[in-house]
Amino acid sequence: MYFSKSFIPILKNNPTEAKIKSHQLMLRVGMIKQSSAGIYSWLPLGFKVMKKIERIVREEQDRVGVQEILMPTIQSSEIWKESGRYEDYGEEMLRIKDRQDREMLYGPTNEELVTEIFRSSIKSYKSLPQLLYHIQWKFRDELRPRFGIMRCREFYMKDAYSFDLTDDDAFFSYNKFFLSYLKTFKRLNLSAIPMAADTGPIGGNLSHEFIILADTGESKIYTDKRIFEVDSSSTMIEKSSLNDLRNQYEKFYSVTDEKFNKEEFEKSVPSEFRLSTKGIEVGHIFYFGDKYSKPMNATVDFNGKKEFVKMGSYGIGVSRLVGAIIEAKYNYNDEIMKWPISVSPFDCAIIPMISKNDSSNLDKSNKIFEYLKTKNIDAIIDDTDENISAKIKKFNLIGIPYQIIIGNKTEGSLLEFKEVDGETQKLNIDEIASQISKAKSN
Amino acid sequence: MYFSKSFIPILKNNPTEAKIKSHQLMLRVGMIKQSSAGIYSWLPLGFKVMKKIERIVREEQDRVGVQEILMPTIQSSEIWKESGRYEDYGEEMLRIKDRQDREMLYGPTNEELVTEIFRSSIKSYKSLPQLLYHIQWKFRDELRPRFGIMRCREFYMKDAYSFDLTDDDAFFSYNKFFLSYLKTFKRLNLSAIPMAADTGPIGGNLSHEFIILADTGESKIYTDKRIFEVDSSSTMIEKSSLNDLRNQYEKFYSVTDEKFNKEEFEKSVPSEFRLSTKGIEVGHIFYFGDKYSKPMNATVDFNGKKEFVKMGSYGIGVSRLVGAIIEAKYNYNDEIMKWPISVSPFDCAIIPMISKNDSSNLDKSNKIFEYLKTKNIDAIIDDTDENISAKIKKFNLIGIPYQIIIGNKTEGSLLEFKEVDGETQKLNIDEIASQISKAKSN
Repeated sequence: MYFSKSFIPILKNNPTEAKIKSHQLMLRVGMIKQSSAGIYSWLPLGFKVMKKIERIVREEQDRVGVQEILMPTIQSSEIWKESGRYEDYGEEMLRIKDRQDREMLYGPTNEELVTEIFRSSIKSYKSLPQLLYHIQWKFRDELRPRFGIMRCREFYMKDAYSFDLTDDDAFFSYNKFFLSYLKTFKRLNLSAIPMAADTGPIGGNLSHEFIILADTGESKIYTDKRIFEVDSSSTMIEKSSLNDLRNQYEKFYSVTDEKFNKEEFEKSVPSEFRLSTKGIEVGHIFYFGDKYSKPMNATVDFNGKKEFVKMGSYGIGVSRLVGAIIEAKYNYNDEIMKWPISVSPFDCAIIPMISKNDSSNLDKSNKIFEYLKTKNIDAIIDDTDENISAKIKKFNLIGIPYQIIIGNKTEGSLLEFKEVDGETQKLNIDEIASQISKAKSN
Repeated sequence: MYFSKSFIPILKNNPTEAKIKSHQLMLRVGMIKQSSAGIYSWLPLGFKVMKKIERIVREEQDRVGVQEILMPTIQSSEIWKESGRYEDYGEEMLRIKDRQDREMLYGPTNEELVTEIFRSSIKSYKSLPQLLYHIQWKFRDELRPRFGIMRCREFYMKDAYSFDLTDDDAFFSYNKFFLSYLKTFKRLNLSAIPMAADTGPIGGNLSHEFIILADTGESKIYTDKRIFEVDSSSTMIEKSSLNDLRNQYEKFYSVTDEKFNKEEFEKSVPSEFRLSTKGIEVGHIFYFGDKYSKPMNATVDFNGKKEFVKMGSYGIGVSRLVGAIIEAKYNYNDEIMKWPISVSPFDCAIIPMISKNDSSNLDKSNKIFEYLKTKNIDAIIDDTDENISAKIKKFNLIGIPYQIIIGNKTEGSLLEFKEVDGETQKLNIDEIASQISKAKSN
């Protein structure tokens, strides 16, 4: 792929309307383009990152046995009246009248709709548990959308729902998501910590937010630093193993603002381990029992009796994660972005110095490109006639983790290779390919 | 995957509200569920088919060099006023006022938005051609939604857009899509024929519909049967090769209703080759020059002059194809559906006869499942206690192309294996796996 032919509209300067780094950078390197207040188009660079995040989220849902469905964006108001949330939701809900004057809305979340699907499909407790998820666009009509795709109106989200017979079974489902979220964020190279949280308009009495640390975060958090040491790598999808994991986390004080209690914090966390900082919410899980199943009459037959199913819901902000990763990974000192290789738009940038009437560096780049392709490494060649330092500066912002620079210093079979934030090495193409492949397989 | 644990809500009978086979079958076997008039949720079986279709559509777009982006569902009315279509579009456009009382709409198509993205990003003719696509939900507020997902309100569509400097370049882009559409439908095992068509509200003067034959189709078509013989397999993505292909097709009379001229039809098609029948539109491509670039002022710099770019647009109805494939492939005589293996929700159904207190057939099924998994064959086991003939009838409707039946007749290592519409063979598991793998790789 040639840079000159790709649709990557780079801006010369940071856009003044953007206040935080992710918003600035995504506009600057042409990942997104605003189409109206709080509504964005995803251009190829941003789209590729978001799709890779989506794929990881999907794989980790599938791994714990959640089945994928897809609910529509436009819902009828009827089911929201059944649950009692139609009035409660306020102006953040985008309300619509169709041509027949029916009251519709753009779904901000899907508890009602999935409960309606469940109750008309599942009759017996023998079909439980049912774990369903979908990845779909949502709309929340924020009064003041800001921070680019971090607090926008139309956003892409994975939301999952669990249906169980008993509280005990439901906690098992809850814990499966707890584990799958840890694994998801780890694959995105993020340290996300689960924190006891308020349930807000979703309801219920058990909830965790998954938060990554970032100074630009909107959530204030209070935690015991030792929570970062908890290891879930040997946890199995099995009741007691999952309980152990939850217990390991819950040994440590770790809450968001709304749950904060100064006295308790200081009592339970030795001062050297206290951390109060800001973070970004990237996931949120809820257990709310029969909050929706009761008003909406979602029951299963159990020994001749109708039992209301026990439900939970589980969200990950897929589009928001693109911004969250930038907030977590951007290096302000050196003005360098470095995507985790698992979600980078390309694996490697090939940056040749190109002078008029001399295509030898471009030819060399093409050969390297073709070779990397055979190794399943996705590269982009900067074939523009910008000078080399402008090119490198541009790619430092784009954030592809590996660069091959083909300049005057290139001699013989050794190439200038570097990680975007590292030192230049002289390596041959085989060594480069194996270094990148190794990083990709981790 | 066990049938009893999957979310596949089967209905006992055909739903009376459904008039055509695809609608009946999709409700009957739990592929979709209506959530409101003309709006559906996709349950796991339907979702898997749609995702596989989406993947093929995507791969064939990528192959001709189209770049993927993603535009939002909610658009501002401003750009539609610029193009002049805001009033024209009528009541099919779902119009929305947000909380700030701004006029928004749910995009029924994206010519305006993509033109806006283009004009603010690309300045020079050197960056042309630009071919962009996205796969996104659209909404058309049909007065009478019907036929399930075939004529619904919220639907999933691939729409692509081309931007070129000259008409000649633009025809080249048009022809790339022409070829990629033929290849896409071929991979879906559909004979789709390109037909000269009216341009309707999109505009322009060159357009082809891609139509598959089906008695339940809404389009009346008139064609020369010899058009089915045209072969695109050796066509290259290169101007003259693509022109040849177009010429080969255009030798044969082939039009939809609006373009039909009886005299011309009878003059140019010998009576033995005349075919007038019904079909389903599965794709539609348009060339419309500067219809949008002019009013919206989308230009590139060419030798110091501003030139309006020449545009085309190219749609495939991804969700509609799920229904279209059923209309094309359902066998009414035997009441059997057979999905092309490329889009089937599973590759193989394992159907054991299960009697109380005897788990031997289920054990056997589990082993077969695990073995097939090692061969990358995705199977589902019907672990329910229904009788075997009910199970087979159910799977004949679900339409997974291969069945392994484990009943009393199973002896030694030979298994009863059949294509859903074929004769039973006795084969060992290796032979079965290689037969399925061979079909998948075609």
